[in-house]
Amino acid sequence: MIIQLNKNIESGENLQLEQTLAQQNIPFYPVNTQLGEYIICTPNQDFDIRKIGQLKGIKDVHRVNGTHKMVSNKWKVKRSKIDVGDGIEIGAGEMTIMAGPCSIEDESQIIKTVEQLKKNGVKIMRGGVYKPRTSPYSFRGHGMEGLKMFHKVCQANDIKIITEVMETGQIDAMAPYVDIFQVGARNSQNFNLLEALGQIDKPVMIKRGISGSIDELLYSAEYVFKNGNEKLILCERGIRTYEKAYRNTLDLNAVPILKEKSHLPVIVDPSHGIGLRKHIVPMTLASMASGADGVIIEMHETPEKAATDGQQTIDYSEFNSLMGKLNTLSGVLNGWYN
Amino acid sequence: MIIQLNKNIESGENLQLEQTLAQQNIPFYPVNTQLGEYIICTPNQDFDIRKIGQLKGIKDVHRVNGTHKMVSNKWKVKRSKIDVGDGIEIGAGEMTIMAGPCSIEDESQIIKTVEQLKKNGVKIMRGGVYKPRTSPYSFRGHGMEGLKMFHKVCQANDIKIITEVMETGQIDAMAPYVDIFQVGARNSQNFNLLEALGQIDKPVMIKRGISGSIDELLYSAEYVFKNGNEKLILCERGIRTYEKAYRNTLDLNAVPILKEKSHLPVIVDPSHGIGLRKHIVPMTLASMASGADGVIIEMHETPEKAATDGQQTIDYSEFNSLMGKLNTLSGVLNGWYN
Amino acid sequence: MIIQLNKNIESGENLQLEQTLAQQNIPFYPVNTQLGEYIICTPNQDFDIRKIGQLKGIKDVHRVNGTHKMVSNKWKVKRSKIDVGDGIEIGAGEMTIMAGPCSIEDESQIIKTVEQLKKNGVKIMRGGVYKPRTSPYSFRGHGMEGLKMFHKVCQANDIKIITEVMETGQIDAMAPYVDIFQVGARNSQNFNLLEALGQIDKPVMIKRGISGSIDELLYSAEYVFKNGNEKLILCERGIRTYEKAYRNTLDLNAVPILKEKSHLPVIVDPSHGIGLRKHIVPMTLASMASGADGVIIEMHETPEKAATDGQQTIDYSEFNSLMGKLNTLSGVLNGWYN
Amino acid sequence: MIIQLNKNIESGENLQLEQTLAQQNIPFYPVNTQLGEYIICTPNQDFDIRKIGQLKGIKDVHRVNGTHKMVSNKWKVKRSKIDVGDGIEIGAGEMTIMAGPCSIEDESQIIKTVEQLKKNGVKIMRGGVYKPRTSPYSFRGHGMEGLKMFHKVCQANDIKIITEVMETGQIDAMAPYVDIFQVGARNSQNFNLLEALGQIDKPVMIKRGISGSIDELLYSAEYVFKNGNEKLILCERGIRTYEKAYRNTLDLNAVPILKEKSHLPVIVDPSHGIGLRKHIVPMTLASMASGADGVIIEMHETPEKAATDGQQTIDYSEFNSLMGKLNTLSGVLNGWYN
Repeated sequence: MIIQLNKNIESGENLQLEQTLAQQNIPFYPVNTQLGEYIICTPNQDFDIRKIGQLKGIKDVHRVNGTHKMVSNKWKVKRSKIDVGDGIEIGAGEMTIMAGPCSIEDESQIIKTVEQLKKNGVKIMRGGVYKPRTSPYSFRGHGMEGLKMFHKVCQANDIKIITEVMETGQIDAMAPYVDIFQVGARNSQNFNLLEALGQIDKPVMIKRGISGSIDELLYSAEYVFKNGNEKLILCERGIRTYEKAYRNTLDLNAVPILKEKSHLPVIVDPSHGIGLRKHIVPMTLASMASGADGVIIEMHETPEKAATDGQQTIDYSEFNSLMGKLNTLSGVLNGWYN
Repeated sequence: MIIQLNKNIESGENLQLEQTLAQQNIPFYPVNTQLGEYIICTPNQDFDIRKIGQLKGIKDVHRVNGTHKMVSNKWKVKRSKIDVGDGIEIGAGEMTIMAGPCSIEDESQIIKTVEQLKKNGVKIMRGGVYKPRTSPYSFRGHGMEGLKMFHKVCQANDIKIITEVMETGQIDAMAPYVDIFQVGARNSQNFNLLEALGQIDKPVMIKRGISGSIDELLYSAEYVFKNGNEKLILCERGIRTYEKAYRNTLDLNAVPILKEKSHLPVIVDPSHGIGLRKHIVPMTLASMASGADGVIIEMHETPEKAATDGQQTIDYSEFNSLMGKLNTLSGVLNGWYN
Repeated sequence: MIIQLNKNIESGENLQLEQTLAQQNIPFYPVNTQLGEYIICTPNQDFDIRKIGQLKGIKDVHRVNGTHKMVSNKWKVKRSKIDVGDGIEIGAGEMTIMAGPCSIEDESQIIKTVEQLKKNGVKIMRGGVYKPRTSPYSFRGHGMEGLKMFHKVCQANDIKIITEVMETGQIDAMAPYVDIFQVGARNSQNFNLLEALGQIDKPVMIKRGISGSIDELLYSAEYVFKNGNEKLILCERGIRTYEKAYRNTLDLNAVPILKEKSHLPVIVDPSHGIGLRKHIVPMTLASMASGADGVIIEMHETPEKAATDGQQTIDYSEFNSLMGKLNTLSGVLNGWYN
Repeated sequence: MIIQLNKNIESGENLQLEQTLAQQNIPFYPVNTQLGEYIICTPNQDFDIRKIGQLKGIKDVHRVNGTHKMVSNKWKVKRSKIDVGDGIEIGAGEMTIMAGPCSIEDESQIIKTVEQLKKNGVKIMRGGVYKPRTSPYSFRGHGMEGLKMFHKVCQANDIKIITEVMETGQIDAMAPYVDIFQVGARNSQNFNLLEALGQIDKPVMIKRGISGSIDELLYSAEYVFKNGNEKLILCERGIRTYEKAYRNTLDLNAVPILKEKSHLPVIVDPSHGIGLRKHIVPMTLASMASGADGVIIEMHETPEKAATDGQQTIDYSEFNSLMGKLNTLSGVLNGWYN
């Protein structure tokens, strides 16, 4: 059960509500986000919802069965639009493109990338400054210094930034320079990080775990929402299977399933999803055709020289051609998914 | 190495060729299909291909590294078109739709299905008469009797039939009534069945195994080709993973990979690939957008009453709507995949 | 529900029983095996079992909920012993060892292997004559000729033979020379083959599919039992996962689970289960410690020269050493598993 | 290449060494642990190791090909013993048992558990105070308060504590009360946490990721070692597969593989590895028989009332019986694994 509170609920009303819940032995969790105040209830037995509905200070009460609460579309029927600032929204019916290199390398790289994005009307640039690497001997990213450089160029060009945050301790320093925090696949169930990201007012995109289930991804989003941040984006990026012909198995089944279960926008990462440069284009088209709200693409001037992930990165010319196809495809799909 | 022989190669020329290979200790396999005569060589060490090229009776010699031979596009650069008869071809650049019920139930069902297909210009009907079922207590299909009924209605309406064959012993009886033999996922590595299907002149569509690798699917096709039948179609139908939110994980990555490695057409089965009726439409669109040559769809007048697989079957109205979308999408995709 | 019939049930009694079931709209399947006559019922609604129990000709009636029937230990509480002939039993509380080469190569190989087996008191030899191979260009086994040679040597030495059968058409020719038919992992859901093996009176060992579930393995056994053969052995041989450090993931969890669900003996194949010669010994010990009724081991005089699977085959000296450990371990385990 | 330095290497010698490496363009990483000083080199091309061996201050130089360095047994041939204090060692040839509840609940629970451990000669107690939970609405553990209670009882009874740490920020507060830090499966690739654990002087046990590869587990250990802590223990706890008959697939293949590749001790967690109380005993025996250095077991006075994981927890009586079997088994295995 989710109780939506009035914006101007009085403290006395709130107290009465919480006392009523406590009297009924209903576990409850107050949630205050950028957009609203809620009380989530997880009653252990059947309960007469009207007893709550009659109390003062309440906007609405929703019966939400199932294990997910705030991220479920059982209470929020309309699909969520995530406000990235300056009129940029994700999940608003238009295709969102995020593109850029795997790793931020230097200023010239950022400038050139931004140029490509602007040419194609793309408003969000991706780029890693903290890189989770399997081996401790690999390149780990340029950290805060790289991020500041990234931000300087992007801000000057009205481009928004999405970048990965790896631990709680990094959030405060990064926040002024980041528009969307990305939680990587390996941190998809780093619950401390998710809780900390619930306490800031920035959009958060959560990648599905390396072998994360769809349910687990929704629970990870629930962690952030419950802690106060409802600007959430889900990201399918391929799962680990037995198949060795490519890097990950892009699970496009997850797109309609996530949209069936949740009101949150769904972005697909075909670059990690297949991991092979020559096949990024078909998998991007397939991602959009499956109903995704957008894609995140690895692009580099010279992929073979990229600091990381070059084997799954397309070059500028491939990106421009892909954008042409995406725009055409988007025109066709637009009426079919809403 | 693949040696393509002249159509009218003389027996003396053939003998000389085989002797030369034997002298060089090169294992070789003569292959005679509907379309050509070949000798496949699997030399254990490097070999001067010109020694063969100079011999008489030879049309062409191709160096084919890697483990797959006849199904590889290293020797056959142009994509194969599979002739189903009466001008119907699969893989010829146009979208192939195969649709129909999971199981053939009765004549009325076939008649009604055919009506829907004709209305939408669909030329191939699917329908099972031998059903592989996990439990021996489940419905197993109507067998030859069902097939004959299936054939009678379809022949009268110029509709081609695709249906599953489960063992070698069934082939001869089925052949007169079948246009495309389907090898099911559970028989994907039933090598005896594959060899037997190599000895007939009917197209064969091989489904990827339940957790079959892409390489294994190509090897299974190689079995059929090597035994004399090159009318082959590959089918991606979802793989088994840990995810429980749907039936199988549709692996659309397999589409561009199969097309990169092989000249054979690739059909996708979104019905098994996600296994949930309400999500068949997006996964069908995604399948085509990934570059597939076509799709095979489960359709039934009243899915909830279907003998088998009703939970992943769409009804007529959903099918008609899907066909509209597919035709629109196909117009867009046509220039991008060839 | 399983109805056990009296051995000498009269035809009139049988008729009355079947009529009663038909009147109650209960689907039923008569099953006649080497050891008994049964009627399996799969009622769609609740049913008063006493109505049946009162009829004549009935030995016992068992309520068997769940999807598996004859293979379930809900009706047969005592663990099954499979009689291989000449006093050799599998599942009788003693450790069963089956060992030998992956493929039968020549007579000398068989003679030497038999010598090793006899030295260690091992009574069952494995060896393939029909080999399922992913590639059609690999060695496929010596077929019936190899089997006859295999049989000649083993019969003379009181050694029983287990070997793989690949299709229905091979059964009759093979039967006189085989003591236990093995169904390979790729044929684990070849239902026609399973049904045909239900019609002979020889033990059948069914390997779990390459990514077969435990439930599916039990269903495959149910196919054989339902068709009249209850001399069944289940075999865990490793499953396909994402891990690349070895060939298959030996799933020893399957051992206690299979023994919890079924009365059939469980054999483990550590050779395929890890696929690496140097680790066969620990995985064999672990297999027995998990409660298996026995193991099947690939052994060869010179594994590096074996026609197939040499990389997972131990040599004679390793086998002798392993047998010493197994005998010690078996002494310890004996009281713990029964 | 790993360069072991003399304990009393002079700073001038060190400088000369680093200059030589820099001149040769060899990337290098100084590592100082509790037990030694090392320089890890990851040269991009072949290199004459003798050039280094001649320099002063060097104890030994090891060529270590492959991707893992410090955790590899290519340089440290003898298996590592991890000193937990007060003469308790892990990996020293004796079976290590860690047992206790999934979650620390209250003081009485700790006292009773300790009693059971002492009765059986078990010296390490497990118990969670920070619990990673998929859902934010689940019990999350008693935190520092629970840990202090845990420590008070255990210290008084000479029992060592292993407990999970979930983020970098918790380490300092926890350290005085913890004997072994456990990194959970979901944090197996939380590289910031691993690095932070490299900077303390406490043993760390790293669990394999939920679908972590064996290589990734070794890399995670490498992260800790490279940051200065070589008191490392690896833990196999089951992987995620398609099989639904149990919770995880215990991968005992990992035991011999990890011992082949690394000098670090290997502990198995059969409780998570199968996740079903009634099958913990056989899987524990199998774990030891596969060559593990020990096991970690969930045990509770009344599993059905446990705060978490009761379904995979054994009770005291089952634990006592298991310990009897383990002691017998250990006597047999002792000579076989060293």
